[in-house]
Amino acid sequence: MFKKFADILIGEPLANEQGASEKYNIPFGLAIMASDAISSVAYAAQEILFVLIVLGATAYQWLTWTSFMIIGLLLILTISYIQIIRAYPQGGGAYKVANENIGVKAGLSAGAGLIISYILTVAVSASAGADAIISAFSGLAEYKVIFVITIIIILTILNLRGISESSKIFAIPTYIFIFSMMFMILYGLFKYFVLKIHPEPMYAVPTKATESLSIFLILRAFSSGCSALTGVEAVSNSVPNFQEPSQKSAKTVMLLLAALIFFIFGGTSVLAIFYNAVPITNGPTVVSQIAYAIFNNGIMYYVIQFSTAVILLMACNTAYTGFPMLMYIVGKDGFAPRQFTIRGKRLSFSYGIIALSVVACILVIIFKADTHRLIPLYAIGVFISFTLGQFGMVNHWRKEREEGWLKSAVINGIGALVTLLTTIIILVEKFSEGAFIVAILIPIIILIQLRIKAHYDRIACRLSISQLNLKKVNLKIKYKHTVIVPIASLNKATIGALQYAQSISDSVIAINISTDKEAQEKLKNRWSELDTDIQLVTKYSPFRAVVTPLLKNIERIADGAAQGEKITVIVPQFVTHERFGEILHNHTSFFIRETLLRNDDIIVSTYPYHLEDEEEAVCELDK
Amino acid sequence: MFKKFADILIGEPLANEQGASEKYNIPFGLAIMASDAISSVAYAAQEILFVLIVLGATAYQWLTWTSFMIIGLLLILTISYIQIIRAYPQGGGAYKVANENIGVKAGLSAGAGLIISYILTVAVSASAGADAIISAFSGLAEYKVIFVITIIIILTILNLRGISESSKIFAIPTYIFIFSMMFMILYGLFKYFVLKIHPEPMYAVPTKATESLSIFLILRAFSSGCSALTGVEAVSNSVPNFQEPSQKSAKTVMLLLAALIFFIFGGTSVLAIFYNAVPITNGPTVVSQIAYAIFNNGIMYYVIQFSTAVILLMACNTAYTGFPMLMYIVGKDGFAPRQFTIRGKRLSFSYGIIALSVVACILVIIFKADTHRLIPLYAIGVFISFTLGQFGMVNHWRKEREEGWLKSAVINGIGALVTLLTTIIILVEKFSEGAFIVAILIPIIILIQLRIKAHYDRIACRLSISQLNLKKVNLKIKYKHTVIVPIASLNKATIGALQYAQSISDSVIAINISTDKEAQEKLKNRWSELDTDIQLVTKYSPFRAVVTPLLKNIERIADGAAQGEKITVIVPQFVTHERFGEILHNHTSFFIRETLLRNDDIIVSTYPYHLEDEEEAVCELDK
Repeated sequence: MFKKFADILIGEPLANEQGASEKYNIPFGLAIMASDAISSVAYAAQEILFVLIVLGATAYQWLTWTSFMIIGLLLILTISYIQIIRAYPQGGGAYKVANENIGVKAGLSAGAGLIISYILTVAVSASAGADAIISAFSGLAEYKVIFVITIIIILTILNLRGISESSKIFAIPTYIFIFSMMFMILYGLFKYFVLKIHPEPMYAVPTKATESLSIFLILRAFSSGCSALTGVEAVSNSVPNFQEPSQKSAKTVMLLLAALIFFIFGGTSVLAIFYNAVPITNGPTVVSQIAYAIFNNGIMYYVIQFSTAVILLMACNTAYTGFPMLMYIVGKDGFAPRQFTIRGKRLSFSYGIIALSVVACILVIIFKADTHRLIPLYAIGVFISFTLGQFGMVNHWRKEREEGWLKSAVINGIGALVTLLTTIIILVEKFSEGAFIVAILIPIIILIQLRIKAHYDRIACRLSISQLNLKKVNLKIKYKHTVIVPIASLNKATIGALQYAQSISDSVIAINISTDKEAQEKLKNRWSELDTDIQLVTKYSPFRAVVTPLLKNIERIADGAAQGEKITVIVPQFVTHERFGEILHNHTSFFIRETLLRNDDIIVSTYPYHLEDEEEAVCELDK
Repeated sequence: MFKKFADILIGEPLANEQGASEKYNIPFGLAIMASDAISSVAYAAQEILFVLIVLGATAYQWLTWTSFMIIGLLLILTISYIQIIRAYPQGGGAYKVANENIGVKAGLSAGAGLIISYILTVAVSASAGADAIISAFSGLAEYKVIFVITIIIILTILNLRGISESSKIFAIPTYIFIFSMMFMILYGLFKYFVLKIHPEPMYAVPTKATESLSIFLILRAFSSGCSALTGVEAVSNSVPNFQEPSQKSAKTVMLLLAALIFFIFGGTSVLAIFYNAVPITNGPTVVSQIAYAIFNNGIMYYVIQFSTAVILLMACNTAYTGFPMLMYIVGKDGFAPRQFTIRGKRLSFSYGIIALSVVACILVIIFKADTHRLIPLYAIGVFISFTLGQFGMVNHWRKEREEGWLKSAVINGIGALVTLLTTIIILVEKFSEGAFIVAILIPIIILIQLRIKAHYDRIACRLSISQLNLKKVNLKIKYKHTVIVPIASLNKATIGALQYAQSISDSVIAINISTDKEAQEKLKNRWSELDTDIQLVTKYSPFRAVVTPLLKNIERIADGAAQGEKITVIVPQFVTHERFGEILHNHTSFFIRETLLRNDDIIVSTYPYHLEDEEEAVCELDK
């Protein structure tokens, strides 16, 4: 889902990604856009059957009808999204469209819906991917949660290292999946109608209905199947990435994608009837049952299962592009912590990637990686963003009144009403199964976003200096200035720090906290050898605590300072270039810095001393 | 387990803990020491039965025999440990005893055994505590893993905040557990023999043996039951905490503890025979089955289940005192990362507490909080440390040759041989069930510890300055000195940093990276209003990355600096005192600092600007 959402949300394409990757031609663009939308075939038909199975054997007939209702909704969405392609050739997304055309809160609601959807894309797709593998190798069932979490951790690491999803290699598994599913559908129909082979169902189909047919049942089935539609908006978000004429290419891809979903989702639903697939909790998936009925234990069965798992992982991975980008743009607007706007060393948004993984893992643990229990949370978020995006587009057309605006406004208006209706159906039908969680979370997320924004605004206001006052700023001031250097012993790093300290101030104090009287005496003796006027203050700490007494002593010196005097603490820190060396050091200085900065008006400096690998270990330890 | 292990490992008592808590009298000392050792009753008899049940109905007879073998081992351990109380009145522990009397690697092996035991104390006790609750409320079974992890997280938070386990309140649940178990044993015997009520067993006892009796089967049962003995060493570690005469009090407590284990563990094993308790995977525990058979659904049944859960949590909590202290002492010796020696704000060793919880949670997830599957890993670590501690004591007596040394050496020698034999039995019998993991981990842990030590020694050597060279140190040097201030805009915080910068150096450069041309222009205009000679360097970054181009520009300036010239980067940072404000800020400066310090010879300073809560928001934003 939300492949290349990046671009919509940002408005203009990312210069670096843009430059680095070639433009998509139609077959490649289709592959890139397809994974999220098509992968939902792996669970959507099964979810519909889970609801309808109470009808007994008639369930299958209604499966087909429900599937075609969903495909109808897909067509409406496709046409509506082609209008967005027309209006936002640089890429448009629900957050941006709703924000610009309705208002901030509508934008935040769409954003909150998307945030939840991204997290569920990871949880659902990874769990469904595990289902596909476990269907073939049932021995793994016991380790499902660990398996799914391992998948998420691997994706996290790959994304932190910055994988490029625009690599052409990603097209291969998509096409393997598409062609093997098509082959399964065609061969399945051929086997049934021409060869007249009707295998025994793997599980007994309940023949008696336990509930009678009702409009509510069909709506519930429909809302279960709507998870198949998450991901169709991806194309509209990536228009500028297509080869010229990009709008035309994007439209073609959109139509091809709709056709593929129609064929594969519709085909799978039809096969479920003939091959009597039954939804089983903790058992093989519906797709696996169909594939097994058609191919038995043949190689094609395993191809189907593996390519299903791989395409689900690719769908999962799209959230790792989309979510950090969404958080980047929301963060830039001030509605999310600024950390989400920092690019890590490898140009990936580390905070977004890690936040996504952590929340998805929590969901996986709580819901025990059970796809069926996660699904009710899934579609609601994305449909809220669909609805707000479409209503935003209606306003957009009304304001802009470009040529043909009325037709577009009508199309988006229909899209808005249909998605609103679907949102309401999903919310009502799935409320007690989990949609209520989303209904509670969205207002909470919006509230948090508004409070974050208010916080940043308040800070900006307090920090601000008017143009007039700028002229009055005194940048020639010379402070009275005391420098404190905490030292544990006299070594090359601490000597370096002391040299630096006395070079920036005439008033330097070295401070030492010893937990051991012997070490304290040794330090005093060695200090007396130095040719210096720097004062050494040394304290004995009987409680094995170093940081707290050190901070107390520094604060006492600071309290005794004159008005307007500046206190600087210089923390000597040696830097090792040995492998794993880093994790063994430097954490005391972190504590000191954070505490002093938080509580006092003290400048904290870190003086690095580099220990080179190559350097011969010149050891001067006193015998 | 390992209650107050603290003290042993450190050799001298912790001044602060010592001062804060009163000395233990005998009843209170017993309660504090008992939780770990006595709580294992909750699973030990059941573990023995799990092995013996293949014998059919004869299993129960052998349960009693095995239990008494374990009680025999307990007596030997008790007498051996009384010798340690005599030799180490300040508290002695396996790491210290083995290290001092055998050698470093023996000490590290004992330490590694203890590290593993502590982690398993948390995983096993929390899981068994959950078992006790789930036995009474089977509906919770589905959420067991989450439940156990929640328990661990709560313990982590309490310990990070620094709870004092020496509070007298901890004696209450221990005595509730002891008295309710005693009551159950006495009433159970009364009901069976006097009232002649013989309830139907809850689960069918397998009457046919599926395996014949063999010495190997009994040894396997014995090794399963050895988990009951983890925790007996706690008393010897806490001698100085007892009321005077402390050695005599400690001995009394040790004997009382042995008597309690004898009565409760032996009594439970006997009741299991009469009331036909059957070990069930994922079902009610053996203790729960006995309690239910005796009290049915009465209040006493729930008292037994809850007090079992509470005492298991207290056992779990002892690891939170012991493990961080062990890591502290190992870290002080240089065999573990120095971070473990840092006390957090609340005088707790945060790193040790967090490391313990994380590893225990991973184990709980992997083993699905299944006590039965965790047990095989449990006893081996603590028995390795028992064995090494006892052998160390033999050497201690031989070296010291105090009065009566020969008797003590013989007692510890017997203890050493018996624990060695037990270690071998556990290792062989439980090898494939999980002990192999420990057998692999211990050498790995020792290897890592030795490499860490080598790393610290290497660093100390490279940093060292001989007494002679100290005299030659030039502490009057004045560096040529350039200061760089990265700024995003001109505000109170950046102005403060610039004022400070020009007060410590005549050569100051302000540097700005803009991702937005408009903001860049605005900054240039505002800069021109300033009355200053400071040079402003501003760069446009088209890739939305700020940190990387900033670092590149700073490094370029540093590369152009003269030999011996020092470069300081001053990062302005505003500090907010709003609640949650902290988590929204200051992460860019963290990246800048870490990267510059790691790669370059640049001093990094942080200039704090405090935004006070109370302060009226004086807003000077330009209209």
